[in-house]
Amino acid sequence: MGSIDANPAAFEAFAVDGFQPLNADEVRSYLHKSVDFIYDYYKSVESLPVLPAVEPGYLRRQLQPAPPTSSAPFDVVMKEVREAVVPGMTHWASPNFFAFFPSTNSAAAIAGELIASAMNTVGFTWQANPAATEMEVLALDWLAQLLRLPASFMNRSTGGAARGTGGGVILGTTSEAMLVTLVSARDAALRRVGSDGVAGITRLTVYAADQTHSTFFKACRLAGFDPANIKSIPTGPDTDYALDPAKLLEIMQADVDAGLVPTYICATVGTTSSNAVDPVGAIADVAARFSAWVHIDAAYAGSACICPEFRHHLAGVERVDSISMSPHKWLMTCLDCTCLWVRDTHRLTGSLETNPEYLKNDASESGTVTDLKDMQVGVGRRFRGLKLWMVMRTYGAAKLQEHIRSDVAMAKMFEDNVRSDDRFEVVVPRNFALVCFRIKPRHGMTEEVADEANRELMERLNRTGKAYLAHTVVGGKFVLRFAVGSSLQEERHVRSAWELIKKTTTEIMEEIVVVE
Amino acid sequence: MGSIDANPAAFEAFAVDGFQPLNADEVRSYLHKSVDFIYDYYKSVESLPVLPAVEPGYLRRQLQPAPPTSSAPFDVVMKEVREAVVPGMTHWASPNFFAFFPSTNSAAAIAGELIASAMNTVGFTWQANPAATEMEVLALDWLAQLLRLPASFMNRSTGGAARGTGGGVILGTTSEAMLVTLVSARDAALRRVGSDGVAGITRLTVYAADQTHSTFFKACRLAGFDPANIKSIPTGPDTDYALDPAKLLEIMQADVDAGLVPTYICATVGTTSSNAVDPVGAIADVAARFSAWVHIDAAYAGSACICPEFRHHLAGVERVDSISMSPHKWLMTCLDCTCLWVRDTHRLTGSLETNPEYLKNDASESGTVTDLKDMQVGVGRRFRGLKLWMVMRTYGAAKLQEHIRSDVAMAKMFEDNVRSDDRFEVVVPRNFALVCFRIKPRHGMTEEVADEANRELMERLNRTGKAYLAHTVVGGKFVLRFAVGSSLQEERHVRSAWELIKKTTTEIMEEIVVVE
Repeated sequence: MGSIDANPAAFEAFAVDGFQPLNADEVRSYLHKSVDFIYDYYKSVESLPVLPAVEPGYLRRQLQPAPPTSSAPFDVVMKEVREAVVPGMTHWASPNFFAFFPSTNSAAAIAGELIASAMNTVGFTWQANPAATEMEVLALDWLAQLLRLPASFMNRSTGGAARGTGGGVILGTTSEAMLVTLVSARDAALRRVGSDGVAGITRLTVYAADQTHSTFFKACRLAGFDPANIKSIPTGPDTDYALDPAKLLEIMQADVDAGLVPTYICATVGTTSSNAVDPVGAIADVAARFSAWVHIDAAYAGSACICPEFRHHLAGVERVDSISMSPHKWLMTCLDCTCLWVRDTHRLTGSLETNPEYLKNDASESGTVTDLKDMQVGVGRRFRGLKLWMVMRTYGAAKLQEHIRSDVAMAKMFEDNVRSDDRFEVVVPRNFALVCFRIKPRHGMTEEVADEANRELMERLNRTGKAYLAHTVVGGKFVLRFAVGSSLQEERHVRSAWELIKKTTTEIMEEIVVVE
Repeated sequence: MGSIDANPAAFEAFAVDGFQPLNADEVRSYLHKSVDFIYDYYKSVESLPVLPAVEPGYLRRQLQPAPPTSSAPFDVVMKEVREAVVPGMTHWASPNFFAFFPSTNSAAAIAGELIASAMNTVGFTWQANPAATEMEVLALDWLAQLLRLPASFMNRSTGGAARGTGGGVILGTTSEAMLVTLVSARDAALRRVGSDGVAGITRLTVYAADQTHSTFFKACRLAGFDPANIKSIPTGPDTDYALDPAKLLEIMQADVDAGLVPTYICATVGTTSSNAVDPVGAIADVAARFSAWVHIDAAYAGSACICPEFRHHLAGVERVDSISMSPHKWLMTCLDCTCLWVRDTHRLTGSLETNPEYLKNDASESGTVTDLKDMQVGVGRRFRGLKLWMVMRTYGAAKLQEHIRSDVAMAKMFEDNVRSDDRFEVVVPRNFALVCFRIKPRHGMTEEVADEANRELMERLNRTGKAYLAHTVVGGKFVLRFAVGSSLQEERHVRSAWELIKKTTTEIMEEIVVVE
């Protein structure tokens, strides 16, 4: 590594003003080149393989293994991005991407993120960036209105006597929303049982359906809950894989009878696996008997609830303690943007507040402002509120609803296609824009062969580069997930994918017949 | 909120392809307008008040309280950004910003972030974006080479038999780096003591100097450590506020004698308050006696260690378990970008791994790739490696070193100025580009009056809008922090700030004399 060592004795010779990394002309030039790249990318991404055919380690073989000593023209850097990076990308922006949940995006969001990156502020306290703090609070209140969340979750105002205890914060991931609320609920439960320090933690229990995202169970472990007390409650086809409140009540009561302390329940509106919807109101009623915290994870499907016809999935939200959803999933806001609202911000800040000397300031001490660092894991934070506000301000509620409805309509079209072809079955009812389907076992085909056929179908589809689907296992069956909604997607892409699925299935079925 | 409700019965009528949020021409147009805004912003930010004179709640009074139903031209949105948002900003990009630590930035970083936002991928697994995973790994290995970290911290390669156990991940904040390593150390210690579930957690202890960032103590609480076992070790002027290894050894030994289990030590290279440097090697030696995990928090000063003349601050790093530093602080990479390296990634993934069905894929199961979700709190993750790689690729090691040295040279110039004026004192030795200074008590001025004079100095400076300084308390004294390095800063800004400080101090001293 000798080449990167400059002569220490020589460093005094550097001109103080020589290197200007934020020279406005250079910034403009680099960004214009980047915008050209993005324009070309969006125009061409449809024709790129969605899933790249690269082997592990491919990038290191194409780029230098060590950092260069000297600078390079930006065009050279962009050439390497085009030639080495792009071919190894899984193109989430492709209209042929149907895997996981789409990460939807929009011109307004990218513009908001760009401006925030250039301003590059760190709004840990109100004083450290009043506009960023107030914009985040305003954006959360706007979105709460679109979702018709009860006023008890809103910030109302920063400053002024009318301020309630509710409020929100924009975080990076749902996992962080779970973690900070878990910690608050944990600390409240420890106080409730009169624990000496954290000694009582072994008695605290948390609950979620077995369809809940794995990150919830991980967040519980991060917060120190005992693995034995993290209860995954079995679900089945009788509830379409949603949490059964009667079962929840039974398990919680048994835990109380055993001397345990029910602390937290995570209800999901739109599970990742199959978009199941846990019954929020009924769960809140059960939780209330035990003073347990209820959190709603509506990461994906929360966005749909801006449409009146989907809002019923949140019925009962006025009785829960917190709710999170991620506009970076389905509300056209680029990563990352997870909105968390809580009914009582003091319960969050009670566990998360820090007060180092170097951040003390009059505004914080007046108690009239929100210091958002006290509602998250870290101290540093990007100006994420800007892009979220710009999305709502630019497009307006009607267009946002149109966006959701367009995706749902395309998913419904796909679902109708599946239902009309008797080689397939829709495995669980479609609630939003995710269709869970499979080749069904017919003509004496065993479940094992059907699973294998479905796996083969997915792998062949993905290898074509013309579509990318993910899978799940529901009720023991291998199921394909077809998630509509990538922001460049149009009806023709869904139709093409369906044609490809039919054709590939025909090929697979013929091979199965031959082999048998 | 009736105005935002569309008629549910009408939703079928929406055209599927009507709304194109990622229309390439619209994206280009919005981004060009944003680039123009950024150009103007960088050209004018010097003349804007660094700290805005707005009252809590100001933004809500200027913008609509509820989200609009219809869309707005992007120019209208940008007008609101210019007229309502900008005047309420604390301008971290201002060359007159000397508070906290600067969030340095560069044209290459903003371009990288922009491209990542547009591609908007979610690289939780290697398969979900091979290029993003490999770019992150490569960028971390490059930076590790610049820092001359031992090979044991490097990823070496994804794939291939030569892969060691070391590796890294890019996270959002230092706090997350602390949290994930704390959890890994916690779980290892629980296994070591044969704990039944988490029952043993009440015996585990963690240590850090009292100058350690408050977020460390918060991260310990998040991970469930007992507040009584989170040991803040006093420091003083005898060690320039660095951790005294002898004192650490004494406290750890006493804890062991009391049946406790030393689990984790956080050493800081460049504390936030005064840039103290804990002696890494000596701390690692103490920790080794107790099998405790040692983490180095080099969030700010780590960047300086790319220069050989500062590298000695990391001496002993080959004997620690993990190290984190944040290029978003001092390596010209816009937020957020915290690099964490660990010597044994298996210890991290052992605590953080999840394996939901819908993320299973051949590459992960082969064991030849890194799934970065298993080294962080959440699942979702931005393509942060791109901007970090683009900074190193575009500027090269020599320019990055020049950038550090230029900031340090300016700080040294400021320090020399302070030392040459006998009204002031430099409170702790300057290690990097932060100068901690104060008006010193002279001519019978009490410490209380001096503290008050310094507080008044800071407040008057900040009210001018021509400079923004933060403060700290070191050794019981109110101290001003003058942090050099905002990316638009030139020598003339430091000189002007010094002139303003001298003039304002003269005014304050005259008033004190009059009052006395």
